[in-house]
Amino acid sequence: MNKHALISAHNLIKPFIHNTPVLTSEYFNSITQSQLFFKCENFQKTGSFKIRGATNAVLNLSPEQKQNGIVTHSSGNFAQALALAAKINNIKAYIVMPENSLNSKLEAVKSYGAQILKCKPTIADREKTADKLISAHNAAFIHPYNDKNIIAGHATATIELLETYPDLEYIIAPVGGGGLISGTALAAYYFGNNCKVIGAEPLEADDAYRSLISGKIEINKTPNNTIADGLRTNLGDITFNFIRKYVQSIIRISEIEIITAMQLVYERMKIIIEPSSAVAVAAAVKYKFNSNSKVGIIISGGNADLSLYFNNIKKEQY
Amino acid sequence: MNKHALISAHNLIKPFIHNTPVLTSEYFNSITQSQLFFKCENFQKTGSFKIRGATNAVLNLSPEQKQNGIVTHSSGNFAQALALAAKINNIKAYIVMPENSLNSKLEAVKSYGAQILKCKPTIADREKTADKLISAHNAAFIHPYNDKNIIAGHATATIELLETYPDLEYIIAPVGGGGLISGTALAAYYFGNNCKVIGAEPLEADDAYRSLISGKIEINKTPNNTIADGLRTNLGDITFNFIRKYVQSIIRISEIEIITAMQLVYERMKIIIEPSSAVAVAAAVKYKFNSNSKVGIIISGGNADLSLYFNNIKKEQY
Repeated sequence: MNKHALISAHNLIKPFIHNTPVLTSEYFNSITQSQLFFKCENFQKTGSFKIRGATNAVLNLSPEQKQNGIVTHSSGNFAQALALAAKINNIKAYIVMPENSLNSKLEAVKSYGAQILKCKPTIADREKTADKLISAHNAAFIHPYNDKNIIAGHATATIELLETYPDLEYIIAPVGGGGLISGTALAAYYFGNNCKVIGAEPLEADDAYRSLISGKIEINKTPNNTIADGLRTNLGDITFNFIRKYVQSIIRISEIEIITAMQLVYERMKIIIEPSSAVAVAAAVKYKFNSNSKVGIIISGGNADLSLYFNNIKKEQY
Repeated sequence: MNKHALISAHNLIKPFIHNTPVLTSEYFNSITQSQLFFKCENFQKTGSFKIRGATNAVLNLSPEQKQNGIVTHSSGNFAQALALAAKINNIKAYIVMPENSLNSKLEAVKSYGAQILKCKPTIADREKTADKLISAHNAAFIHPYNDKNIIAGHATATIELLETYPDLEYIIAPVGGGGLISGTALAAYYFGNNCKVIGAEPLEADDAYRSLISGKIEINKTPNNTIADGLRTNLGDITFNFIRKYVQSIIRISEIEIITAMQLVYERMKIIIEPSSAVAVAAAVKYKFNSNSKVGIIISGGNADLSLYFNNIKKEQY
């Protein structure tokens, strides 16, 4: 993918997304001995960066594809993002969601006017259900991450970050299917000033780490052991190739490190981030940067499940 | 208090505080049919607006008072704020805190270098302990809210808000001891364009509401029934007089309304606010503004106790 593809994606989606704020924290600067810049996609529409790629993918459809509608399968943030991107552009969206998806996620997708088809919670049944829809409606399938338009859209978060802070030495982003880290690394390569990109992955879903060592796409064996529900997916062939080429290294984070980082962000920065984003923050705390390094962190989203907290408050007090 | 006192407080404390951001929310605009502007003092130093008044009070001490040190009693945000304001100005601070104060609050005050004296959790023992310290060190007592320098300092949050949004028709702030609402109302009076100020109070600690009706300072009978721990205090004579003169009305909020507003802010705006701030948000939702009214809301702080949430995550997952 060349620089022009990223610039074009940025110009195309700009009117539909927020240029999210970049926050700093004296506390995190002091414990890392660095200067950290948090790109806050938790304040993005639908609560995560995924609206960027989804919007770019939708805007790149042909007129005929726009008329027939689009299909994807997702249990989480991408489902919401694609549903909203489709709604804004007046396109019919069919979203395959596992029957065990959180009710709040189902409701959010429905509120954006998408048609939901529930499937069994297996990859095989997801794909089978999606295939049926594609045939029935002659609809276009949009993959949640293994897609160049999605990756170019996700790259725009880093383009914005580097517009404001052009001299970042590092950018850290979490790694799930690899769409965000691929876009981040491409944007850092084309728009940064020798800016290195580091991926952050849960130890319990360290497929990217192992894939870089073995040279082939490895599969997660215990993905449900991590609280970082956005990072349980395996890489695709497109994202694996970008990661191999443009990402400097992958740092693996334990569950207790994820939760500790999340708690510190809530308490010190007063913002809600989802566990997947805490993986990137934990990586910044763990990595030994040279003193005073300038480090960007992509806070990927804020869709954390807080019902446990509020149910407990209600129960305890009333 | 005249306009000059507020301007002078603002100029004095500016170098020591954050000009906090003002956030908006499409979701809250839509459910209130108004335009809401959230002045985010949860992002302020020490996590609440109290550093504003504390800094102004400290900077107004005489050279001799600065040398002898200062005393206050507080179990919460004011203790931290005064400790930091004193530390920055190289003044010795003695803080009387009830022995049942949260450990996190004690630690925060200690980390700012203040000397903590624990007392029994009664007003009488708080005052007795403070009096002892005042005599022993010839130190100046700084009241947490019934003090004109404190009020003038707190007014600066509204001065900043009106600098950016001069045509607000309403500003809502929570009411505890009355320091914040007094400063808010004074600033709206001097710097607003016919801007009305509304106080928000928990039903379980509705002393200001009842005081306005009876014409004398009423006492809270069930303050510990409210989750809004910052609003359990009764008014002082100074704050009562400002409220009588400058506040349009007080809206009372039930516990379930407080928690619902807090949850909506967490989930929709992705920011942490403390229960006392949720009282003001709930008032904005409850009040029937004319359609499209421009309404400022003072988000007083973000020092919510999230340990329950994180302890549960740790327990459930590992």
